[in-house]
Amino acid sequence: MEQHPLLELFYKKDYRTFKKKSEQYVPADIAELMEELSPKDTLLFFRLLPKDTAVEVFSFLPSKIQSELSGQINEKELEQLMEDLYLDDKIDLLEEVPAHIVKRILSNTPDRERHVINQFLAYPDYSAGSLMTIEYVDLKKKMTVEEALNYIRKTCLSKETIYTLYVVDANRKLEGILSLRELLVADDEETIENIMTREYISVSTHEDQEDIATVFKKYDFLALPVTDKETRLVGIITIDDIVDVIEEENTEDFHKMGALQKPTAEYLTASVPILARQRITWLLVLMISATFTGNIIRHFEDILQTIVLLAAFIPMLMDTGGNAGAQSSTLIIRGMALGEIQMKDVFRVIRKELMVSLMVGIGLAVLNFLRIAYLEGYPTDIAFIVSVTLLATVMMAKIIGGILPIVAKKVDVDPAIMASPLITTIVDALSLIIYFNFASFLLGFNG
Amino acid sequence: MEQHPLLELFYKKDYRTFKKKSEQYVPADIAELMEELSPKDTLLFFRLLPKDTAVEVFSFLPSKIQSELSGQINEKELEQLMEDLYLDDKIDLLEEVPAHIVKRILSNTPDRERHVINQFLAYPDYSAGSLMTIEYVDLKKKMTVEEALNYIRKTCLSKETIYTLYVVDANRKLEGILSLRELLVADDEETIENIMTREYISVSTHEDQEDIATVFKKYDFLALPVTDKETRLVGIITIDDIVDVIEEENTEDFHKMGALQKPTAEYLTASVPILARQRITWLLVLMISATFTGNIIRHFEDILQTIVLLAAFIPMLMDTGGNAGAQSSTLIIRGMALGEIQMKDVFRVIRKELMVSLMVGIGLAVLNFLRIAYLEGYPTDIAFIVSVTLLATVMMAKIIGGILPIVAKKVDVDPAIMASPLITTIVDALSLIIYFNFASFLLGFNG
Repeated sequence: MEQHPLLELFYKKDYRTFKKKSEQYVPADIAELMEELSPKDTLLFFRLLPKDTAVEVFSFLPSKIQSELSGQINEKELEQLMEDLYLDDKIDLLEEVPAHIVKRILSNTPDRERHVINQFLAYPDYSAGSLMTIEYVDLKKKMTVEEALNYIRKTCLSKETIYTLYVVDANRKLEGILSLRELLVADDEETIENIMTREYISVSTHEDQEDIATVFKKYDFLALPVTDKETRLVGIITIDDIVDVIEEENTEDFHKMGALQKPTAEYLTASVPILARQRITWLLVLMISATFTGNIIRHFEDILQTIVLLAAFIPMLMDTGGNAGAQSSTLIIRGMALGEIQMKDVFRVIRKELMVSLMVGIGLAVLNFLRIAYLEGYPTDIAFIVSVTLLATVMMAKIIGGILPIVAKKVDVDPAIMASPLITTIVDALSLIIYFNFASFLLGFNG
Repeated sequence: MEQHPLLELFYKKDYRTFKKKSEQYVPADIAELMEELSPKDTLLFFRLLPKDTAVEVFSFLPSKIQSELSGQINEKELEQLMEDLYLDDKIDLLEEVPAHIVKRILSNTPDRERHVINQFLAYPDYSAGSLMTIEYVDLKKKMTVEEALNYIRKTCLSKETIYTLYVVDANRKLEGILSLRELLVADDEETIENIMTREYISVSTHEDQEDIATVFKKYDFLALPVTDKETRLVGIITIDDIVDVIEEENTEDFHKMGALQKPTAEYLTASVPILARQRITWLLVLMISATFTGNIIRHFEDILQTIVLLAAFIPMLMDTGGNAGAQSSTLIIRGMALGEIQMKDVFRVIRKELMVSLMVGIGLAVLNFLRIAYLEGYPTDIAFIVSVTLLATVMMAKIIGGILPIVAKKVDVDPAIMASPLITTIVDALSLIIYFNFASFLLGFNG
C-alpha cells in the first residue's frame, strides 16, 4: 500500500511542506490518517496542523483520540480548541474524557456556556436533549426579510445550521419556522411573520433518538427543533447526527439479532474479555434452553434405540425449522423497525405466515419425501413421518417467528430479541416433540 | 382509534372545510393518510387538495399510489403536476408507471428536459446517476458575492438544494464548491473565485449507492456533486435520498442474514407467492445441506444404537455452535458494512476470535460438564466427551464465522450471505463429526 503524501512528509520530518500541504486535504481525511499514528506521533502531527484545520480535524477524530489529545495539549491550546468546537461536539467530548480533563475544559468555559453544558450533560443518553445543539438562528416575527438576512450574514459563522430558521417570541416560545430558501426568494420588505410556517413539527427533549430518526426519514428534514414542556425552543437536531443515529440503531438491531449484548467499543479495538462478556450471557441462556430439547430426545430413548435412523433426521428438522423461523422473524422485526408493520397488523401477519408457510412447507415436505423414500431408499413410513414433521415444523416456525416480535413490542421488549437464536431454540423443542410423538404413534410405540 | 380530522371531513363530504383545513397539515402526513383510502377515494381526495399542497403531497406518496393517480388524472392535471415535481422525483415516478403513462408524461415535457430524463433512465439502478438530480445552483467564478446572491434569489425556487453551490467553467467543468453559508458571510464585492474551495469530493455517475452513502457518512455532507469522465458537473445527490439508501442497504443486509432473497415489495403488500418465492430457495439449499449432517449421524449408527443418550446432546451442540458462529459472523459482517473491519484485518480477526472463543468455550464447557455429570448424573466419560466437543464446536464456529465473511468479500460475494443460516449448517456438520469420532475413540468403537 502506498503511503499518503501527508504521512510521508510527516515521517520525513519535512514539517514546513507538511504544514503547507495539509491545507489541501479535507479534514475528515486527515482525521482518518491520524488514526494510524502512534500516540506520540498523534500529538506532534496534530500540533503541526494549521489552527483552523486542526479544529476541524479534531471534530472528525474518534472520541478515544480526542480524549487522549485533550489530556496532552496545554491549557492554552485546549482553550483555543474548545472555543472553536461546535457545542454538540464539545458535549460529546465531555462525555468521553476523564474527570480531570472535564474540569480543565469547563474551567476555560464562560459561565453562561458552562451552565448550558451542564444542562446538556444531564439529558439521558439517546434522547433529543443529548443530540441537540443550541447553535441555531432565531428570528423575531416583526423583522423584515432584509433585516433577517443581514442578521444572518452577521452572525451565522457560529451557527451549526443556518438553513432552517426559527422564529421565537420574547419568552423563546417557538412561533414558526422558515427555510433560508424561503427567506431568500421573499421580497426584502416582507415581514417574517407573513412568510413563516406556523405548522411545524418539533420533538421534546426526552424523545428517544430512534423516534427522532423516524421523523427525519418521514419528512426529509435537514433539522428539527427541540422544545421543552412550555414549547420554548431549547435546541435543534441536525441531519448529520441523525445519519449516525440510524446506523447506531441498525447496529444495535444486528447485534441483538445475532445474540450479542450491547458492545462498548468497535470490534477491532475492543479487548478480548469485553468481547467474551458480550457473547457469553446469551450463549449460556440458549445452551441451557437447548438442554430441554435434549431431554425430549432422552424421553423418547426407547423408540430411538429401536429405530436409530430416526436420529439421522434431527439435524435437518432442527436446521430447517430454525431457518424458516429466522426468515419470518427477520421480515417482521425489520418491518417493525421501519414502521411498515404495526401491532394492529398482528392478524394480517398470522394469516400471511400461515399461507406462506403452508406453501413453502408443502413444497419442502414433498421434495423431502421423494428424496428420503426414493433417492436414499428409507422405508416410506419413515419418509412420511419426517416429511409431515417437516411441514408442521415450518408452519410452526413461521407463525412463531411472525408473532413473537409483535408480542415483544406489546410488552415493551425490543422485537429484535425475538430473532433467529431464540426462535430456533423454541422451534427445535417443539419440532422434536412433534417428531417423536408422531413416530411413536404411527409406529405403535408408547413414548 | 380516532379518525384524523381531515378524513372525517372527507367522509362527511364537507369539502369546503376540508380544503381550508388541509393547508394546515404537513404534506408528508397527508400522504400517509391517503395510503388508507380506497383507490376511488384516493383520486377524489387528491383533487380536493389545494394545488400547491397536492404537488407536495404527491412527492411523498408511495410509488404505487403515484402511478395509479397518474393514470387517472387528466392531461392538464398531469401536466401541472409534472411541472412542479423535482426532476429526481419525476424520474422515480417514470421508472414505476406503465409505458402508456410514461408516454403521456414525456409528451408533456419540454424537449430539453425530455433529453435529460432519457439520459437519467439509462443509468443503472443503485448508481449515482439514478440517484442524482440536475437541479442545483451553478455559479461562475468571476461573479461577485452580490451577483451570486441575486442570481440565487432569482432562480432558487426551482432548485432542489441551494445550500451547496457549484462553480463551473464554460465547459461545465467543476472548478470549485462553496456553501451558501460561506457566500453569506463574505463581503458583497468579493469574487466567487476567492472564496470557493478547490478541493472538493465528487463521485462518478456509475458509482454504487452504498459507496456514496459511505462518503456522506464520513464527511457529513448535505449534497455531493456527480461528475462525468471529463469532470464535468452532471448532477448532485442530496442527503434525503442518502438516508433512504442507508435504510435500503441495511434492509438488504438484514434480509440476506435472515436467509431471504431480495424482496420486491413491503411485507404487508407483497403477495403470498412472492413471499414464498423469497424464502424457498435458501430453505431448500440449507435443507439439502443439513441432510449431509444427517448422513454423519447415520454413519455412526452403531455407537448411537449402543449409547442412545449420546443423541440427547445433539440439539445442545448444534444450537450452541450455531449461536456462537452467528455472533462472530454478525460482528464481522456489520463491522465490514460500516467500514470498521477491512480485508487486511483478517489475521487480527482470527487471533481475536481464537482468544474470545477459547475464553467463552472453556466457560461453557466447564459449566456444561458440571451440569451433565453432577446435576443430571450422566457418566463422567459422556460428560467429558460432550464438553470437549462443545469447546471445539464453539472455537470452530467462531473462527469460521469470523473468517467466512472476509473471504466472501475477497471473492466479491456479499459478506452478509455468510451469516447465521449458512454458518450454522457448516458448523453443525463439523461439530457432529468431532462428537462421534471423539466418542468412538474414547469409548472404543470403530465408526
